[in-house]
Amino acid sequence: MLSPGFKISIMNKVIVLNSRPVGKPTLKDFKFIEEDNPTLKDGEVLLKTLYVSVDPYLRGRMSEAKSYVAPFELNKPIQSAIVAEVTDSKNGDFKIGDFITGGLDWKQFQTSSGKGLTKVDANAADLSAYLGILGMTGLTAYSGLINIANPQKGETLVVSGAAGAVGSVVGQIGKILGCKVIGIAGSDEKVEMLKSKFGFDEGINYKTTTDMKKAIKDAAPNGVDIYFDNVGGEISDAVLANINKFGRVPVCGAIATYNDTEIPMGPRVQSTLVKNSVLMQGFIVSNYADKFPEAIKKLSGWLKEGQLTYSETIVNGFENIPQAFMDLFEGKNEGKMVVKV
Amino acid sequence: MLSPGFKISIMNKVIVLNSRPVGKPTLKDFKFIEEDNPTLKDGEVLLKTLYVSVDPYLRGRMSEAKSYVAPFELNKPIQSAIVAEVTDSKNGDFKIGDFITGGLDWKQFQTSSGKGLTKVDANAADLSAYLGILGMTGLTAYSGLINIANPQKGETLVVSGAAGAVGSVVGQIGKILGCKVIGIAGSDEKVEMLKSKFGFDEGINYKTTTDMKKAIKDAAPNGVDIYFDNVGGEISDAVLANINKFGRVPVCGAIATYNDTEIPMGPRVQSTLVKNSVLMQGFIVSNYADKFPEAIKKLSGWLKEGQLTYSETIVNGFENIPQAFMDLFEGKNEGKMVVKV
Repeated sequence: MLSPGFKISIMNKVIVLNSRPVGKPTLKDFKFIEEDNPTLKDGEVLLKTLYVSVDPYLRGRMSEAKSYVAPFELNKPIQSAIVAEVTDSKNGDFKIGDFITGGLDWKQFQTSSGKGLTKVDANAADLSAYLGILGMTGLTAYSGLINIANPQKGETLVVSGAAGAVGSVVGQIGKILGCKVIGIAGSDEKVEMLKSKFGFDEGINYKTTTDMKKAIKDAAPNGVDIYFDNVGGEISDAVLANINKFGRVPVCGAIATYNDTEIPMGPRVQSTLVKNSVLMQGFIVSNYADKFPEAIKKLSGWLKEGQLTYSETIVNGFENIPQAFMDLFEGKNEGKMVVKV
Repeated sequence: MLSPGFKISIMNKVIVLNSRPVGKPTLKDFKFIEEDNPTLKDGEVLLKTLYVSVDPYLRGRMSEAKSYVAPFELNKPIQSAIVAEVTDSKNGDFKIGDFITGGLDWKQFQTSSGKGLTKVDANAADLSAYLGILGMTGLTAYSGLINIANPQKGETLVVSGAAGAVGSVVGQIGKILGCKVIGIAGSDEKVEMLKSKFGFDEGINYKTTTDMKKAIKDAAPNGVDIYFDNVGGEISDAVLANINKFGRVPVCGAIATYNDTEIPMGPRVQSTLVKNSVLMQGFIVSNYADKFPEAIKKLSGWLKEGQLTYSETIVNGFENIPQAFMDLFEGKNEGKMVVKV
């Protein structure tokens, strides 16, 4: 006989922020804890985590510094975009077996009021696609390129981080709109994939190229009209040195500098901006939330027509989420990095 | 008796580019030459130079490097905005005694087909104003601030080079539109003038301030919504460190770096742009030429109502044009720098 108060249970695994990373994140910055499985209250749904998105921007939330979203709290669960299955429901809007996506905790199971959750169709696309091409990364690519750069047929578009989840979509949309598209990536395999899989016109491996400024000039003899900047750092210096009059630069990320503990130095941009009347616009995808329905319509349309393809790196196992996140900064992913739980 | 072929004439003085400046321009980069006085052909007007505008952007045209306007040619006259009087005319559109403004050669007298000349009204404003508040500098201030930054009531606007011809107008327009306006300038006298003459809320003397970042934070406790950047360099670093979400940065000039022979280094801006969804837009005034009539209407209206005032530094003598130009880079001007011939 079990003594009173003793429960047999499989505990729920949770990943919390153990310490704020200094420079590159390490495994010690994460802690696995266990908690009782959640119990459902009226109005709530019980969610089983299926796919977890790991993204460079999470690095920013791990710092204490004020940014566009609040920092994660120490010893509290880390959050990111997740696809989950509804395994129990006391909420009329959701039934068992529904699939949803939303910004959720890094937990195996969790409850939710349903607020902020979006149902997704498992038959229309692979579930992981809702974390990528039809989720935040696809919307980021579309929103930044269309709303900021407004690409015109015949223009030259350069994309850094081109083999990544955002970059590969940016380049493909550029091609659909009639641009010449040049991608910058970090291996010969990725550069090959840009051309063979994603239809880029040219690719540059920045790791084996000694003179990036010249390489971009060779690939873009008419200059660069649009530079979709995913990386910052010296790659961006080289592209900006080739920017045309009235050039547009959506600044989407600066992964090259996210792990720096001080603001890194580089050539000042002001003279270039004035000389060529260049626009640089930093953005996050949520700035364009009012245009998401239009964007999703376009993206799904192109996907169905086969004009758009995507790649993803799927890592297996809840326990591998921290390592998958860290691998982003080593460029180990090809396309969207997702953890299958 | 004079021998045949001997002419008595006062020769026409001309200033040509003698050498391309390396770093700061020196007197040796300019050469005074004399040529025969021009003779008038059919369809032409003869112009007597009255006021010559000297402007930082001319430094760019003295370099060989491609910029937004073609470089000046060696041993050819330098050009800038000039107010001149029509002293003879074989062109039906202009009569003797008309005053005009246009981009003209640094010559005491010159002929013109009339193309690109605009008649100005000597009774409506001082003639020199057509090189400043009602000319390129006023239009630059208006165009960049209104079209790029679209200031809203209650926002905080920071202006660098605030005591200059563009900056002082930017700040006044900001006040007219209901912004809190902070100006950065290079002497206590200029800072005092920003407040007493131009109605700025706060002024910062960057030459005597050791921690500019903190000084801006103190002056703008709610952060900076708009930064009208006339200078680039470390002043801009300090302002950008205080920029708010959705901040706008019209980049008008980078006088701090114009004389540098290599692109100077500074903190990379990309992370700041992404974190706060900041816009930086380099521009030159001619990008907004289609909106000049509206701008001039607004500016003259405010001028008449006494809502707008301006200051200018008038240097006397054609022979002092090169020195007046060089003095711009020492901050010796207060407001628009003009040479009265």
